[in-house]
Amino acid sequence: MHAGAVGGQVMWERAAIIAVGDEVLTGEVVNTNGSWMARELIRAGSRPLLQQCVGDDVEAIAAAIRGALERVDLVVLIGGLGPTPDDLTRLGAAQALGRGIHRDPAVTEYIRARHRQGVGHEASIAQQSEIVDGAEVLLNPVGTAPGQLIRTGPQERQAVVLLPGPPSECRGVGALLLERVRQATGRQLVRATWHCYDLTESELAHYLRPILTGLHPRAGLYTRPGVIDLRLEAEAEAAGGGLPAAVARAAAEAQALVPVPLYDDAWPIAPDRLLDALRRRGETLAVAESVSGGRLAAELTAVPGASDVLAEDVVVYTDAAKVRLGVPAELLAEHGPVSQAVAEALAEAVRRRAGTVWGIGITGWAGPGGGDEREPVGTYYCAVAGPDGVVTRRRRTRMAREVVQQAAAETARFMLATRIHPHP
Amino acid sequence: MHAGAVGGQVMWERAAIIAVGDEVLTGEVVNTNGSWMARELIRAGSRPLLQQCVGDDVEAIAAAIRGALERVDLVVLIGGLGPTPDDLTRLGAAQALGRGIHRDPAVTEYIRARHRQGVGHEASIAQQSEIVDGAEVLLNPVGTAPGQLIRTGPQERQAVVLLPGPPSECRGVGALLLERVRQATGRQLVRATWHCYDLTESELAHYLRPILTGLHPRAGLYTRPGVIDLRLEAEAEAAGGGLPAAVARAAAEAQALVPVPLYDDAWPIAPDRLLDALRRRGETLAVAESVSGGRLAAELTAVPGASDVLAEDVVVYTDAAKVRLGVPAELLAEHGPVSQAVAEALAEAVRRRAGTVWGIGITGWAGPGGGDEREPVGTYYCAVAGPDGVVTRRRRTRMAREVVQQAAAETARFMLATRIHPHP
Repeated sequence: MHAGAVGGQVMWERAAIIAVGDEVLTGEVVNTNGSWMARELIRAGSRPLLQQCVGDDVEAIAAAIRGALERVDLVVLIGGLGPTPDDLTRLGAAQALGRGIHRDPAVTEYIRARHRQGVGHEASIAQQSEIVDGAEVLLNPVGTAPGQLIRTGPQERQAVVLLPGPPSECRGVGALLLERVRQATGRQLVRATWHCYDLTESELAHYLRPILTGLHPRAGLYTRPGVIDLRLEAEAEAAGGGLPAAVARAAAEAQALVPVPLYDDAWPIAPDRLLDALRRRGETLAVAESVSGGRLAAELTAVPGASDVLAEDVVVYTDAAKVRLGVPAELLAEHGPVSQAVAEALAEAVRRRAGTVWGIGITGWAGPGGGDEREPVGTYYCAVAGPDGVVTRRRRTRMAREVVQQAAAETARFMLATRIHPHP
Repeated sequence: MHAGAVGGQVMWERAAIIAVGDEVLTGEVVNTNGSWMARELIRAGSRPLLQQCVGDDVEAIAAAIRGALERVDLVVLIGGLGPTPDDLTRLGAAQALGRGIHRDPAVTEYIRARHRQGVGHEASIAQQSEIVDGAEVLLNPVGTAPGQLIRTGPQERQAVVLLPGPPSECRGVGALLLERVRQATGRQLVRATWHCYDLTESELAHYLRPILTGLHPRAGLYTRPGVIDLRLEAEAEAAGGGLPAAVARAAAEAQALVPVPLYDDAWPIAPDRLLDALRRRGETLAVAESVSGGRLAAELTAVPGASDVLAEDVVVYTDAAKVRLGVPAELLAEHGPVSQAVAEALAEAVRRRAGTVWGIGITGWAGPGGGDEREPVGTYYCAVAGPDGVVTRRRRTRMAREVVQQAAAETARFMLATRIHPHP
C-alpha cells in the first residue's frame, strides 16, 4: 500500500481544476494555467478527471466547487484572488464550504512588505489578506495574494485549494501545493513520449493499433506541428525513476511495428535539451529564419542562459535581407527563395557571419499567399550546416500559416538533434 | 424583438464549449480552440456560460453533453472526430441524444478526394464519414473530418455541434457554425478594449471602481505582460457597427477618472494593425531584439504579408552579435548591455543596416540570471529610431522571464504606434 493510501484508496487521487475568471470563460485569456496544473498533478500521482472554467460570479464558483467535490477529492481553483471587485474566489469557496472569512495579520504584513506603493494599495492589501476560516496559507513567493488550502469532507480527506491566476504566481504557489500532493498520494506517474517525423497521424495509428487499443500502459497519439507524439504512461515502479517495465515494453513494440524511426528524449529536440546538449559539447549556433519568422529564436531564448549557445538569430523575411546576410542574389534569382540551394546558403552564411559551429537556415511558403506549382504553399526547407557539411530536408504541411511556421522550427531542432545524436 | 427571438427568448443565447480529448484534459495541449470559440460566440450574440474539458471516454462525453443541455441551448464540442480509436465524440453525442450513426456516402467521397494516400487510409476515411442520425453535415474546408450540427430539444431549439480539433480545422468548420449562430441569435455584441501602459492593476482598479462595479456596460480589467486592458461590452445598437452609447459613455468616464492616457484601437499597437498602418504610410521597419529574443519577430511574421514592412529582425543576444550589428564595443563596455545608450544604438544600427524608415532596439534582463543594483532583473529599455530621432523608454516588470520578454515586445509595439499616432 502507498504512503498516502488508506483502505486501498490513494488520497487526492482524483482532481478537478477550475479556472476562475470572465477573461478565461470568454476566451480573452487562454487557460495555460489549467494545462500546466494538469501535467504537474499527473506527475505528482493525482489524475484530473475534470477541467472547467467559471466566470467571476460567487454563485457559479460555489456551485462548481460543490459539483466537483461530488466527483473528486482535490479541487484546485486558479484565479480570482486579486485586488479588484471581480476577484471573488475567496467568497465562492467560503460559500461552498459554509465557512467564514477572516483577515490574517501575518499575511497582511507579508503582503505589505512586497506590495508596490500607489493609490488604492491599502484596500488592495486588505482584500488579498482575506483567508477562508480553517485554511492553510500558502504564502506567495513571487507576488502578493497567497494561496489557500482548505481541508474538508469526511476525515478531512478532501481539499479545496485556491491559487492566484497570474501564470508566474500560479506556478510559484502551485509548487507548494504539488509538494503536498506528492506527500498525499505517495506515488508518481511516469509519462514518456516518442516522436515520429515521417508519417501522418492516420498512418501511425494504423501501425500502432495494437498499442493504442491495449489497456496497459495508457497510450495516445497527438499531432503537433511537424511531428506526431506517441505518449505512454504508467505508475512509477521505483522512487529513483526510470521507465516502468510496461512502458519500456510498449515502446519497443511500437518501434517494431512502425517502419520509420521513433525518437525519445535521448534526442535533444526540445529547446532546453538542445541548448544543454550544445553547451556540454562547447558548441555554438546561429540561425537564419525566413518562413519560421523568429519562432525558433523565441523558443530558444525562452530558456534561461540561451546566450551561451545562440550567438545570433536573424529573421530574413525579404530577399534583400537574405542578400545582406550573404546569400548570392544570382542564387535567389536562379532557384527562387524557397529552395534547397537558398536554405543551404542561409545556413552557411549565418554560420560564417557569427563564427559558430552550427548554422541553421529555414525557408518556405507559410501562406496564404506565395508558392507555385513546384513549391506549393506549406513547403519548407530546413538546412543544418556544420563542420562536416550541410544537410537539408524538404517537407510540406497542408495546414494554416502558423502551423507551417511552427513545423519549420520543430523540423530544424529535430534535424540538429539527430545530427548531434544520429538514430542507430 | 430580434430575428432569432421567440417568446422573448433569443435562440442559442446561452452556450457551452466542451473540449474533448485526454491531451487537453491532461494538459498536453493548451485549449486555444475553446478560447477562440468563446470569443467568436460572444461576437455572434451567444454567451458561453460553461467551458469544460472531458477525456476520450464515451460515457464522459455523453454525460457532459446531457449536463450542458440542462443549462444552455447551444453545446459546442471540439475534438475527437479524427481517425484513431480514441476519437469518440461521434459516439458520445449519439449516446447522449439516443440516436444512431450512419455512414454518409457523399461525405465519404468528399473526404476521399482530400485524404492523403497511405496505409490505413480506407479505415480512416470510413471512420471520419460517420454521421449522427439527423445531423446537418458541415463539410471541412481545410481538412477531412466534417463538422456536425444536431438540432434537439423541444421544437428543436437546442443544438449539439461537433467540430474537429486541429486548430485550423476548428476555425474552418467553426466559421460555418458561427454563420448559423448569427442568424439564430439575430444580434451581435460589441466588445471594445482600452489599454493602459502607465499604472498597475491595483492603481487602475482604484481609479475605475465606479465603472468596474457598475452593471452596464459589462466592464473588466485584465493584466497582460506590459499592459492592463479595460474591457467594455454591450449589445450592438445598429447593424452597421460602431460603439454602443453605453460603452462610449463609460470609456469617456474612464479616461476622465484615470490620470494617464488610455489607448484604444485607433492606436495601431496590435501586430496586424501596426503592420497595416506602416504599409499604408509606405514605411518599413527593422528590429534588433536582445531581451525579447525574437518574440516581436514572431508576432509580426504571424501576420500574412509581413515582409512588405518588416525588412529584417535580428536577435542579438550576445555582446559579440551586438557589435557585429554595429553597436560600438566601447559603448557596451561603458554603459553595459542593458542601458538607454545600447537600446538607442541597437535601434539606429539595425535601421541603418536595413535602410528602413523605423528601427526598434530592445535590451534588458529577463532573468533569472543577470541584472545589477542599477538595472535589476526585469528592467528593459525599448528604443524607436525614426526620421526625427530616437525615443527610449525604461520599464520594469517584477515577473517571470517570459513575462519580461513579452512585455518588452508589447512596449516596443506601443511605442512605435504612439510615435505614428501621438496621444492628443
